[in-house]
Amino acid sequence: MKTLLRNFDILTTSKSSPIKGGSLLVNGGRIVEVLETRSPVPEEGIERVIEGRGRLLIPGFVNSHTHLGMTLFRGFAEDLNLEDWLEKWIWPAEENLTPEEVYWGSALAAVESIKAGVTTVADMYFHMDQTAQALEDSGLRALISYGIIAPEMSSGGEEEVKTGLALVDDWDGAAEGRINAALSPHAPYTCGDDVLTELSKAAEEKGVPIHTHLSETRDEVDRSVENFGLSPVARVEKLGLLENEVMAAHCVHVDEKDIEILADYRVLSLHNPTSNAKLASGIAPVAKMSTEGVDVGLATDGAASNNDLGMIKEMKLAAMLSKVSNGDPESLPVEAVYRMAVAEDVDGFGLGKLGKIEEGFKADLIAVDRNSSRWIPEYDPLSNLVYSGKSADVDMVMIDGKVVMEEGKVTTIDEAEVIEKVREIATKYGRIRQSKLSNTT
Amino acid sequence: MKTLLRNFDILTTSKSSPIKGGSLLVNGGRIVEVLETRSPVPEEGIERVIEGRGRLLIPGFVNSHTHLGMTLFRGFAEDLNLEDWLEKWIWPAEENLTPEEVYWGSALAAVESIKAGVTTVADMYFHMDQTAQALEDSGLRALISYGIIAPEMSSGGEEEVKTGLALVDDWDGAAEGRINAALSPHAPYTCGDDVLTELSKAAEEKGVPIHTHLSETRDEVDRSVENFGLSPVARVEKLGLLENEVMAAHCVHVDEKDIEILADYRVLSLHNPTSNAKLASGIAPVAKMSTEGVDVGLATDGAASNNDLGMIKEMKLAAMLSKVSNGDPESLPVEAVYRMAVAEDVDGFGLGKLGKIEEGFKADLIAVDRNSSRWIPEYDPLSNLVYSGKSADVDMVMIDGKVVMEEGKVTTIDEAEVIEKVREIATKYGRIRQSKLSNTT
Repeated sequence: MKTLLRNFDILTTSKSSPIKGGSLLVNGGRIVEVLETRSPVPEEGIERVIEGRGRLLIPGFVNSHTHLGMTLFRGFAEDLNLEDWLEKWIWPAEENLTPEEVYWGSALAAVESIKAGVTTVADMYFHMDQTAQALEDSGLRALISYGIIAPEMSSGGEEEVKTGLALVDDWDGAAEGRINAALSPHAPYTCGDDVLTELSKAAEEKGVPIHTHLSETRDEVDRSVENFGLSPVARVEKLGLLENEVMAAHCVHVDEKDIEILADYRVLSLHNPTSNAKLASGIAPVAKMSTEGVDVGLATDGAASNNDLGMIKEMKLAAMLSKVSNGDPESLPVEAVYRMAVAEDVDGFGLGKLGKIEEGFKADLIAVDRNSSRWIPEYDPLSNLVYSGKSADVDMVMIDGKVVMEEGKVTTIDEAEVIEKVREIATKYGRIRQSKLSNTT
Repeated sequence: MKTLLRNFDILTTSKSSPIKGGSLLVNGGRIVEVLETRSPVPEEGIERVIEGRGRLLIPGFVNSHTHLGMTLFRGFAEDLNLEDWLEKWIWPAEENLTPEEVYWGSALAAVESIKAGVTTVADMYFHMDQTAQALEDSGLRALISYGIIAPEMSSGGEEEVKTGLALVDDWDGAAEGRINAALSPHAPYTCGDDVLTELSKAAEEKGVPIHTHLSETRDEVDRSVENFGLSPVARVEKLGLLENEVMAAHCVHVDEKDIEILADYRVLSLHNPTSNAKLASGIAPVAKMSTEGVDVGLATDGAASNNDLGMIKEMKLAAMLSKVSNGDPESLPVEAVYRMAVAEDVDGFGLGKLGKIEEGFKADLIAVDRNSSRWIPEYDPLSNLVYSGKSADVDMVMIDGKVVMEEGKVTTIDEAEVIEKVREIATKYGRIRQSKLSNTT
């Protein structure tokens, strides 16, 4: 479908000022032409016109590390450390999850993500067929993977890897190429050496990326050094995992040597500022990593440790944490966090060309309304977007050339139905939570 | 006017679960009666009924440190340290401000605040008659003060103190008691000893509180020790300032001894997490201060260093910063940041009884819509409010028993007119900004 987006202020990249009153031609899921102010606008063959009405047009946000199904556990257990949170609350609760529940939890997350201007997610969880289906239904672009947890190939590993590979076989390239798959060792601390080696080989064979958790807590690093004589980063390097395209969530506790390894292997480090702060895991040294040549993406992590899936507030928090932890207000300026949020510098990972509004890039676009009092004055639209913008300002979302949200309404799936289903499902987990609370107190 | 709020889920205090389907009788600006679920609801003499429709009812937010007029400088100068930001950008620009401009800047801030569920502000700036007028027009409750900057009484101090006192005489108790006044030495580093002593006496005579900046940056503390042999906190104690009711913004760099002084004198410490992070000033040790008996309020500071005036995201950031800086995910749990945001523990400062929904408390109330996907599931409404709630979820605001916002529309002042005026004013500062940018590069 040939679509014309007319009279928007278009932010083509973080480095340029917006084209005032520019237009854009989209066809077959891609940006075909970017038209400057007052350029004659093509009329032939246009099937749909979207009027800008002074809105800002930017690339959609890339939420590079999520667990969509976990949205069922938003607010389930609060103000706890990662270990207690996972081992005492989340993992036991997850044992009760049915595939159908994961579908609805993922659908809820998809609705929330789209409304917040997210056009791509990199999602790792289980019952992933269900999440994949919710993603296909919602219209989101995604890189999906099954989170593999196994101490050895011979003790659970074979089965786990099989499940991970089945997801790749079933879904890589699905939904007209919108959905791609990765392989996911959940983390070095939950996977044995032979499992990591096996996954490394499998990823190479299948030609898919690796998506893992890496060096999230101080404790994880200490135990790795104790058990293997190596930091988690050095260990996965030694095991050959980094020979693949690797995206590594967190990278909070990384030293000079780790950062050098991440840079050398072009690992994409995924920054989850809210989740790392909420669980008191720490603050990833993203400004330093960027300077040392590590590519950094931005992410929300799951709703259970965030608790929302919006990326604008994540940009702001990333900037705040970097400034205050480095004692440097110039650290992570607006352009830098914006680039991380739209994946402007990211290439590969089965996602295609994202993050810029240029010919040949994917038509993953969002329109931002600037009429709220929070946007006044507007000395610099990018600064307003990052520091006073809100997910609620996003009022049109296009993915792969198709409009999936207009005026705050998701057009692909039925939000009311999704909310009703999740409310039903949550009564079950509410009961589980209450009985745990009564046992604790 | 006798108003009945019917069928809300009422969060009376942070310590209790909401009353499901409760009702509330308001009269003469105060809460007259809180009715439990299914209690018979009075019908006689009711002039207005507001239907809850499952919304959550909580006390309005108290934004305890603002510079409303500065909203004109939202996004004016970004990613700079406090000194450069103030001395090179903000102060020179402020020299151009006219009283009328401050009116419109304050009106814009009032609109934004009300829409975000703020019902009270403690505001310090200049051309404060204009801000006071905007506050009266908007319906907000406020404690206002003129920020006094003077090295000595004999060099500018007399005039400055006179201006500060005139504001008290003209506005203390105005707008049917909604507007009260304080005296404000801008900060110990901008006021000489005799100015601080004079203000201390004047505050006692007038019976008004003191509102000041205190120990915001490391540098401020170092210079104070160098020049006076005392920390800023110890210095203002010595000068007698703390004999008054004192609210002190920031208190970022306070040591054990400072904290003891703040606790002894019942100083209200005002926490501005975003502003302190953005300017890389540091993270105030609010969890520690609370433990040591210091009362803490929450605030946004001016829009120029935030850049928005919403309090929900400020609660979340306060929690995140406290957890990650203390390495303790239990630090500042949801109840604690909520109490700071609604001033549940605050008494005095000319504000009256705020922060709880109980008989005799001010009818400053906000209704929160919980139908967005971000509020699903809802295991605990307070946790959803703090961690996934947004200002946009606030859809009714009552101050002093009067509805000032309904369904997202401010009813007291004309938002469209305010936005138009500020856009006009901003063209002047946009030109100043551009010429500074061209000179810098």
